[in-house]
Amino acid sequence: MKKYRVGILGATGAVGREMLKILEEYDFPIEELRLLASKRSIGKKIEYKGIEHLVEEATKDSFSGLDFVLGAASNAIAKAFKEDIVKAGAIFIDNSSAFRMEDTVPLVVPEINGEDVYENKGVIANPNCSTIIALMAVKAIHKMSPIETMVVSTYQATSGAGAAGPVELKNQMEAICKNEPVESKVFQHQIVENVIPHIGSFLENGYTTEEMKMQNEGRKILHHPTLKVSCTCVRVPVVRSHSISIDLVTRDHLDIDDVKASISKEKGCRLYDDPKENIYPMPIVTSNQDIVYVGRIRKCLIHENGISLWCSGDQVRKGAATNAVQIMMKLVGLLD
Amino acid sequence: MKKYRVGILGATGAVGREMLKILEEYDFPIEELRLLASKRSIGKKIEYKGIEHLVEEATKDSFSGLDFVLGAASNAIAKAFKEDIVKAGAIFIDNSSAFRMEDTVPLVVPEINGEDVYENKGVIANPNCSTIIALMAVKAIHKMSPIETMVVSTYQATSGAGAAGPVELKNQMEAICKNEPVESKVFQHQIVENVIPHIGSFLENGYTTEEMKMQNEGRKILHHPTLKVSCTCVRVPVVRSHSISIDLVTRDHLDIDDVKASISKEKGCRLYDDPKENIYPMPIVTSNQDIVYVGRIRKCLIHENGISLWCSGDQVRKGAATNAVQIMMKLVGLLD
Repeated sequence: MKKYRVGILGATGAVGREMLKILEEYDFPIEELRLLASKRSIGKKIEYKGIEHLVEEATKDSFSGLDFVLGAASNAIAKAFKEDIVKAGAIFIDNSSAFRMEDTVPLVVPEINGEDVYENKGVIANPNCSTIIALMAVKAIHKMSPIETMVVSTYQATSGAGAAGPVELKNQMEAICKNEPVESKVFQHQIVENVIPHIGSFLENGYTTEEMKMQNEGRKILHHPTLKVSCTCVRVPVVRSHSISIDLVTRDHLDIDDVKASISKEKGCRLYDDPKENIYPMPIVTSNQDIVYVGRIRKCLIHENGISLWCSGDQVRKGAATNAVQIMMKLVGLLD
Repeated sequence: MKKYRVGILGATGAVGREMLKILEEYDFPIEELRLLASKRSIGKKIEYKGIEHLVEEATKDSFSGLDFVLGAASNAIAKAFKEDIVKAGAIFIDNSSAFRMEDTVPLVVPEINGEDVYENKGVIANPNCSTIIALMAVKAIHKMSPIETMVVSTYQATSGAGAAGPVELKNQMEAICKNEPVESKVFQHQIVENVIPHIGSFLENGYTTEEMKMQNEGRKILHHPTLKVSCTCVRVPVVRSHSISIDLVTRDHLDIDDVKASISKEKGCRLYDDPKENIYPMPIVTSNQDIVYVGRIRKCLIHENGISLWCSGDQVRKGAATNAVQIMMKLVGLLD
């Protein structure tokens, strides 16, 4: 089997480490693994398949000979190295939002628009985590009849803010238990015993950057430029897995039982919908997996063609690291 | 000033104790206070204005001479004593959901349909907590132009399940901090580091009883039988204050600045909407107050006449105890 030379840019962060875990789990055929990070991580060691790998500083010369670079760094870092990566002949599969909306950059969820990966000019973007999870949940419906509108409210885990998010939640929980003052550094406000309707930064239209991604990235991934999404993104005191409440309207009327049957057959999804038995998606059920759970599927009470549902999925995995690895697998023919 | 004889049915529970606190804060003119509860609370003492009051067992003879009974007990208890209360000549202001949808029972949020209290036949119902908070947030909009539809997702605090809710959250937080197993008794699942899309019990249409209240009670309170609401109710690991994401459509087009100006003038509401300064409603801001905070007000991206907003309010106070006391104040002319 052909093996590949793979670099991870931002290897020491939450998503970078998860990418390594997933490469190992999926047994991706690796010839060479290059772990790249900022200067302050030089000398750190990270284990891959039982062997310690030294973290190197990412410089413009770091990418020669690589087939793929998985990007798990900030927009600024992604922008700083993009040209060097492409010049070195590697394909840059980037998890930042820096290039997602660029015309020449495919934005891909392999189960939805996997064929788009072949249109790349050296850069492929990994979508926003909440967008991936929401679209995975509704893709079966969209195939049955195009989705025209979605009202979305999210319940996003602290790990969406990187490795420091859950640490802050844990520290704040301990402070509460010890009756000590709570300190907030990662989030704008205390997150323990609270919810914060603020993820990303605020735009002139009153929405956040995070909220607009659901519509903008959703349109590009679904090849559906008229999709309308009104979204509210909320941080909740959860460690892993984003949960999402969706009220959508399709062009045609769909039968709820047909919708459930379709979702149950969909790749990457699990129909988890037996509320009378207390079975519905929740973070404690869906964490540390690559599958998006879908439940609470019911007729919307407003629109004749409306459907309400609830989903939950691990946004560090399918919402980020797994999706990036799957894009790479699609490119090399290891994913249907 | 005339003084009144007031009974509290379910005086030892979370809402009952909060009613006492609010009677004291509002300095309601009380001639006699009768604290009623189940047999197992006999002999408990509860302080009111610095004086200890003994809890008595509620029996069918407990209500003679009372002007008002504030109900803070279950549906079953409310049903068991309703006839006795009415026969005794007292007005029963009940926080349970037992009588809310009965034609002869006014369902009242004083700032919205306060005049309805006078139509009572001895029983007045206090609405569902999330419904009160959502309607308080949107009432200014509904006055400007009738609300036709609302898509609602809630973020409900553990205290909505009674005093045992926050105790369970606290115990589970301590278990997590000590790396011990988490025990769940009050909620269907672990609530710490989780969200649970299940409040109330499931109906045939896939919605919960709690979710249907938003539409059914909303229609009655607003005198608006064609209002359509599609609601998803979710428990979150918060102690006090429910938060709610609302996407609504009005009959006419409204200007967002006009909406903000109207909400800022509305009784019982606070416009709290300066997101660029990290100012928006959150449980840690709105707890232990009677005011519902409204923010994140923006044009919905789907409907021409749509508005998205976010609100938070203390559901033990305005969502339950305060609202009941205000109904009583309205009846005796102590509230405009």
